[in-house]
Amino acid sequence: MPLTHDQQAEIDETRAETRQTLRATSEGMEAHLYRAHPVLDHGFVRVIDYMGDDAAITQAARVSYGRGTKSVQNDEGLIRYLMRHWHSTPFEMCEVKLHVKLPVFVARQWIRHRTANVNEYSARYSILDREFYTPAPEQLAAQSKQNNQGRGTVLEGEEAARVLELLKSGADRAYDSYEAMLDQGDQQGLARELARMALPASIYTQWYWKVDLHNLFHFLRLRADPHAQYEIRVYAEAISACVADWVPLAWGAFEEYRLGGATLSASALDCVRRMLKGEEVTQETSGMSKREWGEFREVIG
Amino acid sequence: MPLTHDQQAEIDETRAETRQTLRATSEGMEAHLYRAHPVLDHGFVRVIDYMGDDAAITQAARVSYGRGTKSVQNDEGLIRYLMRHWHSTPFEMCEVKLHVKLPVFVARQWIRHRTANVNEYSARYSILDREFYTPAPEQLAAQSKQNNQGRGTVLEGEEAARVLELLKSGADRAYDSYEAMLDQGDQQGLARELARMALPASIYTQWYWKVDLHNLFHFLRLRADPHAQYEIRVYAEAISACVADWVPLAWGAFEEYRLGGATLSASALDCVRRMLKGEEVTQETSGMSKREWGEFREVIG
Amino acid sequence: MPLTHDQQAEIDETRAETRQTLRATSEGMEAHLYRAHPVLDHGFVRVIDYMGDDAAITQAARVSYGRGTKSVQNDEGLIRYLMRHWHSTPFEMCEVKLHVKLPVFVARQWIRHRTANVNEYSARYSILDREFYTPAPEQLAAQSKQNNQGRGTVLEGEEAARVLELLKSGADRAYDSYEAMLDQGDQQGLARELARMALPASIYTQWYWKVDLHNLFHFLRLRADPHAQYEIRVYAEAISACVADWVPLAWGAFEEYRLGGATLSASALDCVRRMLKGEEVTQETSGMSKREWGEFREVIG
Amino acid sequence: MPLTHDQQAEIDETRAETRQTLRATSEGMEAHLYRAHPVLDHGFVRVIDYMGDDAAITQAARVSYGRGTKSVQNDEGLIRYLMRHWHSTPFEMCEVKLHVKLPVFVARQWIRHRTANVNEYSARYSILDREFYTPAPEQLAAQSKQNNQGRGTVLEGEEAARVLELLKSGADRAYDSYEAMLDQGDQQGLARELARMALPASIYTQWYWKVDLHNLFHFLRLRADPHAQYEIRVYAEAISACVADWVPLAWGAFEEYRLGGATLSASALDCVRRMLKGEEVTQETSGMSKREWGEFREVIG
Repeated sequence: MPLTHDQQAEIDETRAETRQTLRATSEGMEAHLYRAHPVLDHGFVRVIDYMGDDAAITQAARVSYGRGTKSVQNDEGLIRYLMRHWHSTPFEMCEVKLHVKLPVFVARQWIRHRTANVNEYSARYSILDREFYTPAPEQLAAQSKQNNQGRGTVLEGEEAARVLELLKSGADRAYDSYEAMLDQGDQQGLARELARMALPASIYTQWYWKVDLHNLFHFLRLRADPHAQYEIRVYAEAISACVADWVPLAWGAFEEYRLGGATLSASALDCVRRMLKGEEVTQETSGMSKREWGEFREVIG
Repeated sequence: MPLTHDQQAEIDETRAETRQTLRATSEGMEAHLYRAHPVLDHGFVRVIDYMGDDAAITQAARVSYGRGTKSVQNDEGLIRYLMRHWHSTPFEMCEVKLHVKLPVFVARQWIRHRTANVNEYSARYSILDREFYTPAPEQLAAQSKQNNQGRGTVLEGEEAARVLELLKSGADRAYDSYEAMLDQGDQQGLARELARMALPASIYTQWYWKVDLHNLFHFLRLRADPHAQYEIRVYAEAISACVADWVPLAWGAFEEYRLGGATLSASALDCVRRMLKGEEVTQETSGMSKREWGEFREVIG
Repeated sequence: MPLTHDQQAEIDETRAETRQTLRATSEGMEAHLYRAHPVLDHGFVRVIDYMGDDAAITQAARVSYGRGTKSVQNDEGLIRYLMRHWHSTPFEMCEVKLHVKLPVFVARQWIRHRTANVNEYSARYSILDREFYTPAPEQLAAQSKQNNQGRGTVLEGEEAARVLELLKSGADRAYDSYEAMLDQGDQQGLARELARMALPASIYTQWYWKVDLHNLFHFLRLRADPHAQYEIRVYAEAISACVADWVPLAWGAFEEYRLGGATLSASALDCVRRMLKGEEVTQETSGMSKREWGEFREVIG
Repeated sequence: MPLTHDQQAEIDETRAETRQTLRATSEGMEAHLYRAHPVLDHGFVRVIDYMGDDAAITQAARVSYGRGTKSVQNDEGLIRYLMRHWHSTPFEMCEVKLHVKLPVFVARQWIRHRTANVNEYSARYSILDREFYTPAPEQLAAQSKQNNQGRGTVLEGEEAARVLELLKSGADRAYDSYEAMLDQGDQQGLARELARMALPASIYTQWYWKVDLHNLFHFLRLRADPHAQYEIRVYAEAISACVADWVPLAWGAFEEYRLGGATLSASALDCVRRMLKGEEVTQETSGMSKREWGEFREVIG
C-alpha cells in the first residue's frame, strides 16, 4: 500500500471540500483529483490540478470570446483535424499537474522530457524513506539477446531467487549504511546531501510534475510504447487512463492518429503502393534492411 | 469600447454559469475571469483560466499530499524565501491563460518570450477587422535624443496634428486596399494569406496566451519596466493587477525582491561599501562609466 | 539583387580569411558560409556559423572520447536507426546560425518555432529600408474555394494588374508616411518605435536565427510542406539545400523517414491491411471521412 | 587519473588534426578543445566543440553582414551594456558542447537546467564501470545545524573513518551485486535496464551537454554560487575557466554584473538610501527579518 494513514487522511480531507468556480471543469477529471493510482510496488500517480477540457482546445483554436464550443460533433471534427495535421498549439492550452512517486531510475528517464515543470522531493533537505522497487516475479527478465536495450525471457527458479535476493539485500544494506551515516547519536552525522549518494537507483522519490496536453501526448507516445522500459510504461498507462477521462475527444484523436497509427518511410510507402498494384515485394526488392523489413511486415500485418 | 454587443453577451453568459470543483480556487481571480480589461484604444486583457493559488506554490515546494498550507504566515515566509533565493520551480506550478487583443507591433515584441503557449487569430484563415491603434495625444512623442530606442518630448500643435493625420489616413487607406483586394464582387479576390501583407503593424490582432507564474513574472519584470515601450507596458500593468489579486503573497514577494529591488554590479557594490564607510565617491573614482554612474545615482537616490 | 555593394564587400572579406581549428568541420557547409542565397524578391538566407557534422551525431549517441566515427557505413546505419526510432537528442548536437532577410508576415509565422535563438533588426532603434515583398505574377493567387487557408487559381489580366497596383502603391504610400513622420527637418520627428507601426507586413526585416538540427528538421518538415504558405516554403527550401550539403547522412535519413514518409492513422492502417488481403475498401467501409479518405488515396497512390 | 591510456590516445589523436575553416574561432578555446580537465576523483570536463566568440555576440546584436566587430573597445562597451540591461538574446548566439563525467547525484541536479541538449551514456544499453565518488577528507562534512540543505563542520578522526568506510564498502558491495546479477556464466543474467537499479548515486556517469552562452551563464551563476553543493560547484568552476578563455569580454561582463554583483530587495535599497543619508538603521527598523538582515549586512560589508 503506497500511502500511510495520515497521507490518505490528507487526501480524503482535500477531496471533501467542494468549491465554486467559473472555470471550465471536466467531470471525468474531478473524479480522479487527489486520488492515488497505485503503480509498481510503492509508487503512485495522483492528479493534483488541471486546466481546461476538450472545449478549451477548440476555444483556443478559434480564439473565441465565450466557451468556444459549437457542438460536440463540431468540436470532435475540429480536434481530429488539428491532431491529424500536427496543429499542436491548441492542445498546449490544457495543462495538468501530477504528484508522482517513482523509483529514481525511472525518474532519470522521465526528466529527459524538458518541456514540463518539476519540483522534486529534496534529499539534500530531507531524509528519504526505506522504500525500494523490487520487480514482481514476472518482470524479472534476462537481458535480451536481440535487443541491446531490452528484456528477454523471464528468469525462473533458482536464478530468479538469486537475483531477487541480491536486489533486496543490497537495498537493505544500502539503507542501513545511509541511516548509520546520518546517525546523530553521539556522532555528528554526515550531511544529508552527501549521505544520499549511498542510496541505489531503486529507491523511491517523488515529485510534482506539470505539463501541457501536447507535451504530455508526446511523453505518452514514447513512454507507453512497447519499446519503453516496463517500469516507466506503467506510469504512462496510469496517466493515460486519467487523460482519457479528462479530455475524451482529444484522447480519441490521439489514439486514432498517434498511438494506433504508424509512420511509414519513403521506401515502405513505395512498397505498399507496389503491393497494392499486385507486385510481390520481398525484402530483397524492398530497398529496406532486414530489420526494417521486419518492422514493416509487423505494421502491415 | 473594445467589445461588440455579441461578444459582451458571450462573456456575460460564461460568467453566469457557476460550477463545482475540487481544485484549488482563488477568489481574487474568480472575480476577473472572462472580463475584458480595456488596454489602449481597442485592446483588452481577459483572464480565461488559471491553475493554482498561493498555497499551490508551497504545496509543490513541500511536495505535499494535501493542500500544502500550514498557515498563511508560514506560507508567506516560504514564498518570500523562494523568491529571494531564485528558487523558481515552485512558481512554475501556477498557470494562467489570457485572451489578449493587441496591435501587431506589440504582439511582435511579446512573442519574443518563448516559454509560453500561444494561439493567434489567423489572417490566413479569417479577415481582420478595421481596427488600428492610434496613440492618445499624450503618447505622441518625438524620438529621444539621448536614447536611441526611446521617446522624448510629446509632440504638440501642428506637428502632432500632422503625424496623427498621417497615421489615421495611412491605416484607413491600407484597409481600403485590403478590402479591395479581397473583394469577390465579379472579381476572384486575392488569397487572404497574401492580402494581409498590405496591413500595417498598428492593426489589432488577438491571441490566447498561456504561461506559468515564474515566466509571467519574468515577462512583467521586463515589460512593466519604464524602459519598455509604453504600448506593451500598459498590457503588463493590466496583467499585474490580475496577478496581485490571484496570488497576493507571491505578488508581494515579487514586488519586494524584483520590481522594487535593483541589481548592483560589482563596482556599484564596492562604491556603496566605500560610501557607507564615509568615503566621498565620484564618477571618476567609482570605476563606472558616466552612464552607469548616472544609473547608479538614481538607484541609491 | 538583395545586397548592396558594401554588404557584398563585407561578405567577400569575411570569406577571404581562412583560420585554423581543431573542431569538426563540414566541407559542404564551408562552401556556403556567409554567401547570400536569394529568396523572394529582396530576401536571402546566409549561413553564418555551424557546429558539428554527421560524425558529431554518432559521437554524441556513443558518448565517445574521440571523433566517434567508426566508418561511414556504420555511421549511416546508426543515423538512420536514430531517425527511424525518434531518438532526437543526438541530432540536437549539431547547431546552425543563419542570417535571414524576410518579409514581416513570414517572420511572424517563423517565430512561432520557439526552440531557437533570435536577434532581430530593431525598428525601435533603427530606420527600416524601403523594401517590400511583391509577389511574382505566378504567385498572385486567388483565395482557394476548398481550403480556407490556401490559394486557388492564379489571377490574370486586369484582375492581376489591379491587385499588383494596390500592393505596390500601398507599400509606397506607407513608406512615404513613415519617412514623413520621422522627418526631422524643422520638425521634431515621431519616435521610431511609433512610426514603424505605419509599415505594412510586406516590409522586409532581418534576423540572426540559431537552431539545433533536430528542431531545424521539425521546422523544415512543417514549412517545406506543400500546405505551408509559398512565401515561407521557399525559405525552407533554401535552408534544406544547405543542410543537405552540411550533414548529408542525416539529410538522407530525414528524407527517407520524414519528408518522403507518411503517418497513417489507425483506420488508414486497417484499410491498408484489408486491401493487402484483397478486400475492396471504399470510403463508406473505410471508417474515414471523405476528406481523410481523399488524403489517404493520395498517400497510397 | 580519470582517463585510460586508450581514451587519452583518442584525445591526442583528435588534437593532432588541424583543419581549415572560414568560421569565427577563439584561440583561447582552441587550447582547451578535447582536453580533460579533472574534477573530483574520477570526473572531468572536456570541451568538444564551440560556436562563436565575443565578436559573434555583437555581430548578432547589430545583425551585421560581416564579422560585426568595430573595435575591441566598442565591442566591450556593447557587451557590457547588453549584460547590464538583461538583453540576453545576443549571448544565446554562442554555443558550447561539453563531455562531462560526473557522479549520478550531481547529474540529477544538473539536468534540472532544461534549456540544454543532453546525450547520456545509457546503462540500459551498456555496462557501467566500477567508479564511485568518494569525498576527499576535507569534504566529509557534517549536516549543518543552521541550514537544512547545507554542510557544517568537517568530520574528523574515527567519525570520518567510519563514514568513509561505509561509503566505500557500500559502493563496492553494490557493484559486486551488479556484476553478479549481470553474470552470464551458466546463468542467464538480469537485463541491464534492471540490474542498474542496484547502483548507488555515487557512481559515475557521463554525457554530452550542449548549451548556449546565456543559459550557461545562468547555470554558472546558480552552480558556482557558495550555496550550491560542493560537488557540482567544482564542475561549474572548471567550466568557468574555459569560458573565461573562450569569450573574455563576455566573461568580464558576467563577473561585473552577475557574479560580483548582488540583487537588493526594495527594503534593502531603502535601508541603503537611509544609511547613506546618515541614518543608523538596525534590523528592527529595517523592515527585514533577522535572516534577511544578516544576508544584507554581508552584502554591504
